[in-house]
Amino acid sequence: MDSNKLTAVLLLTCPDRVGLISRISHFIFERQGNIIDLDEHVDQEQQLFSIRVAWDMTNFTINAQQLQEAFAPLAKEFQATWSLRFLEQKSRVAIFVSKRDHCLNEILWRYQLGEYNIEICCIVSNHSNLKPIADQYQIPVHVFPVTKNNKKEQETKELQLLQKYQVDTIVLARYMQILSPQFVKHYPNRIINIHHSFLPAFAGSNPYRQAFERGVKIIGATSHYVTEELDQGPIIEQDVIRISHKDTLKDLIRKGRDLERLVLAKALRYHFEHRILVHGRKTIIFE
Amino acid sequence: MDSNKLTAVLLLTCPDRVGLISRISHFIFERQGNIIDLDEHVDQEQQLFSIRVAWDMTNFTINAQQLQEAFAPLAKEFQATWSLRFLEQKSRVAIFVSKRDHCLNEILWRYQLGEYNIEICCIVSNHSNLKPIADQYQIPVHVFPVTKNNKKEQETKELQLLQKYQVDTIVLARYMQILSPQFVKHYPNRIINIHHSFLPAFAGSNPYRQAFERGVKIIGATSHYVTEELDQGPIIEQDVIRISHKDTLKDLIRKGRDLERLVLAKALRYHFEHRILVHGRKTIIFE
Amino acid sequence: MDSNKLTAVLLLTCPDRVGLISRISHFIFERQGNIIDLDEHVDQEQQLFSIRVAWDMTNFTINAQQLQEAFAPLAKEFQATWSLRFLEQKSRVAIFVSKRDHCLNEILWRYQLGEYNIEICCIVSNHSNLKPIADQYQIPVHVFPVTKNNKKEQETKELQLLQKYQVDTIVLARYMQILSPQFVKHYPNRIINIHHSFLPAFAGSNPYRQAFERGVKIIGATSHYVTEELDQGPIIEQDVIRISHKDTLKDLIRKGRDLERLVLAKALRYHFEHRILVHGRKTIIFE
Amino acid sequence: MDSNKLTAVLLLTCPDRVGLISRISHFIFERQGNIIDLDEHVDQEQQLFSIRVAWDMTNFTINAQQLQEAFAPLAKEFQATWSLRFLEQKSRVAIFVSKRDHCLNEILWRYQLGEYNIEICCIVSNHSNLKPIADQYQIPVHVFPVTKNNKKEQETKELQLLQKYQVDTIVLARYMQILSPQFVKHYPNRIINIHHSFLPAFAGSNPYRQAFERGVKIIGATSHYVTEELDQGPIIEQDVIRISHKDTLKDLIRKGRDLERLVLAKALRYHFEHRILVHGRKTIIFE
Repeated sequence: MDSNKLTAVLLLTCPDRVGLISRISHFIFERQGNIIDLDEHVDQEQQLFSIRVAWDMTNFTINAQQLQEAFAPLAKEFQATWSLRFLEQKSRVAIFVSKRDHCLNEILWRYQLGEYNIEICCIVSNHSNLKPIADQYQIPVHVFPVTKNNKKEQETKELQLLQKYQVDTIVLARYMQILSPQFVKHYPNRIINIHHSFLPAFAGSNPYRQAFERGVKIIGATSHYVTEELDQGPIIEQDVIRISHKDTLKDLIRKGRDLERLVLAKALRYHFEHRILVHGRKTIIFE
Repeated sequence: MDSNKLTAVLLLTCPDRVGLISRISHFIFERQGNIIDLDEHVDQEQQLFSIRVAWDMTNFTINAQQLQEAFAPLAKEFQATWSLRFLEQKSRVAIFVSKRDHCLNEILWRYQLGEYNIEICCIVSNHSNLKPIADQYQIPVHVFPVTKNNKKEQETKELQLLQKYQVDTIVLARYMQILSPQFVKHYPNRIINIHHSFLPAFAGSNPYRQAFERGVKIIGATSHYVTEELDQGPIIEQDVIRISHKDTLKDLIRKGRDLERLVLAKALRYHFEHRILVHGRKTIIFE
Repeated sequence: MDSNKLTAVLLLTCPDRVGLISRISHFIFERQGNIIDLDEHVDQEQQLFSIRVAWDMTNFTINAQQLQEAFAPLAKEFQATWSLRFLEQKSRVAIFVSKRDHCLNEILWRYQLGEYNIEICCIVSNHSNLKPIADQYQIPVHVFPVTKNNKKEQETKELQLLQKYQVDTIVLARYMQILSPQFVKHYPNRIINIHHSFLPAFAGSNPYRQAFERGVKIIGATSHYVTEELDQGPIIEQDVIRISHKDTLKDLIRKGRDLERLVLAKALRYHFEHRILVHGRKTIIFE
Repeated sequence: MDSNKLTAVLLLTCPDRVGLISRISHFIFERQGNIIDLDEHVDQEQQLFSIRVAWDMTNFTINAQQLQEAFAPLAKEFQATWSLRFLEQKSRVAIFVSKRDHCLNEILWRYQLGEYNIEICCIVSNHSNLKPIADQYQIPVHVFPVTKNNKKEQETKELQLLQKYQVDTIVLARYMQILSPQFVKHYPNRIINIHHSFLPAFAGSNPYRQAFERGVKIIGATSHYVTEELDQGPIIEQDVIRISHKDTLKDLIRKGRDLERLVLAKALRYHFEHRILVHGRKTIIFE
């Protein structure tokens, strides 16, 4: 890919100190980069500096390959955690699903519209019923029926498959299996889940039933990165919808379905546009 | 009070069966009542019928005193739980507060505007700092400093005071003491609390800190009836507001303040207009 | 269709007077109907009574054909405008589209899930590009390219087609042609449009551009019945989404797309469940 | 005031070009300023760069007085429109009211809580009924009854008063008089109004009645800068609330009141924290 057609995105976090923005923006300026978006945040309590800078590389004096190396000394000096990516470089994605189609449908529809700059390499499922949808988009489906006994082996096979496809991001689009900590470890902050409740309320199974029984007046959906602890990962996006005593459990599921689709879709946009910095249990979203 | 200037409100719940609305509306019609609002709900799962009917008593052939007695046989036949009240009859209210003024201010402002048909008999506090606000509205303030050791005695004194004022509804407007089950028992579904989180998330103390540390993207407030279990009572109203990583704990408190005021204000309107039926852990709100 | 498996829905509006609910519910009760939902509203200013009653006809003593006739005298006495329909009776629907797929996709997906009890008879378009989507659902597409000169003839052909299919409801799912008053007259309160703004703001063409140029902080979508005056029909449902100065016109279109889909979907549910009474320029929605 | 205890805020807009952030942040860095917040935006369509930078002046090598002069050459080179203010420097504010108290109450309550770093110098009204509220906060009230005939003279007197108090920002807290273009000209982008509708819908008088008659399902409130054209100024903030056919005009007014209070309060926070850049008819809000 031609470096001069790229848009670089730097995500960086480090202890706060005087001159960080000046130094970083100067690094870009002196190489003829044109900053098109810069957003920064200082957590005063933790004295933590975070930044996202995107710049046009049309006249950049070094190329994409040299950039990482050129920036490394500065990052080291700042004791930073950082990444440098290019908006035009497609993320390679696997979608995990079970039986419900709404989240998968939503992602594929947006994918086709070109909303995400990604390549959906494959769909992984523990069931085969969503194959017809995948076929419409000509995306390969791999079925791994998971039982208590074969979980470890199946996950191993899944990991091999993901490696084969060079997948860098996994989307759990209402995948009803719990991934093992061993599996999760391979994709730190690269597995995105949609949970059908307003976390931390109603974690675990059957959140709509839990909400119905508690008699809440609002239900929610939460998209988060998957960590080893179930439903405890850093939250990317949440949204809610009002319900009333007239709504049955079935109505909650119907209303929640629309939330899940949109919340997951929004979280994916943040992720694929490199707008998310994870710090501990929390995310910073550079909108 | 002149019966013919009253608006009667019937709240009734009973096992569902054919003819309930016909029988109830006929009861009103044959006594020349003009129904101005009727809302009913059938919980199909539990086969439970619930209704709120309000009617104009201008030409009603029996008076307010006779009404209870006249309706009782029908209610008995239906095996109903029911109440009959009059919109023009003022609820007698005590407001419990601690140090924060926003919820108290909001209620008093609406009270003065005439939004609630109530009489605020007194303000009870474990501190004295909100006395100047109460004074503006010429409402007596009674201070009961509560400690671990004197809680039982203080609650006894509070109950005596409430009895003296003939209080029927207690509003906890950010009252930072936990009422004992013994106290709560005297006012079943008559104590309304505002909790500064989206329950059941972040029950207990310091919900804003809990929310801040969990990194949620939305915070909430919940108004509920107080039961013996802390923050577990039937939910009346909830609302939420979006936050971001830029918001400090102080910002959460500031933003949440506006939610608390409005959610409590709305819950009070439902309560004082007799729009709430409690069934088990849940409420039916006839809006 | 077996009458005893039906759920009857009465929508009625008439001048308010004493005893309406009693008389109507008694009519149902004496014929052994079991009311499963009743919602009424009295517009005090206009002294107008409106009601929606749904009842189970399992043990009803007269059949569906006799019902209209049996109820007519009561309706006449009340000087009512009314309709009696059955939830199980499928509405016959035509969807009009142009080039954009999001609203069509949404309706077809929900249709397939069984959310609406309807029969989508045909899709009418002035373009042919959405044919592949229709094919997936095996719904016939009829293309009528409309120009200034042939509009009248094309509309005549469309009306013949709709008559052939016995269509009773037309959904304009982002159909970019203005229907003539002559056409609209054939389907009073039976043509549902989605307009991509928060009406009455930004009526007419290019509402997103209008919104962008005005610098509003929130955009909306509105579903309404089509009347002879453009974008002036009774509003069924509206919703909004927050935008900021960061959003380009393209972002507004992207964000608005999600609103349009959901607002139209909700309006259709109200319409097909016979929850809407139109009175003058306004709707009453029995939720 | 001690310069080293100040926080400087630069608001700047200029044609976009390479190196702007680098040059500006370097200016601050080389004088030992510590940037605590920086937000920028590039309008790609108009090639317009906008920025808000806030920095801590604890170790700044020049003082507040010298800063304007030191920055001027850079701004000139960029052909920028700009302002430099200090967060600790109190804005001097006049509040204009008529008969309704809710917006005034809200502002005074927040003022007392210290939410805004301002000095409310005086309250101006065309009525005298809100004087008791002002008295509670010991703020002088000046009553100028305005009629068709005396408007010009009264405005002249008001302007003299404002000059006397050195007022820099005027808040129209439901002030029901239209200010003349001559008056407005004295305070460009310094007069903030709250309009009780979702502009541009229902501009002018009686917006709640307009909304009620149109049958919208959502109502709104809009805070904007006042320009010579009525209700056409740059929008600062908007919010909405859902209504239904059950809501009377009186209910709309009651519900809208809460919106008005909160929308105005939020707009004021943006204004007094120097978070607003006006460009043409639109605002950029650096949240």
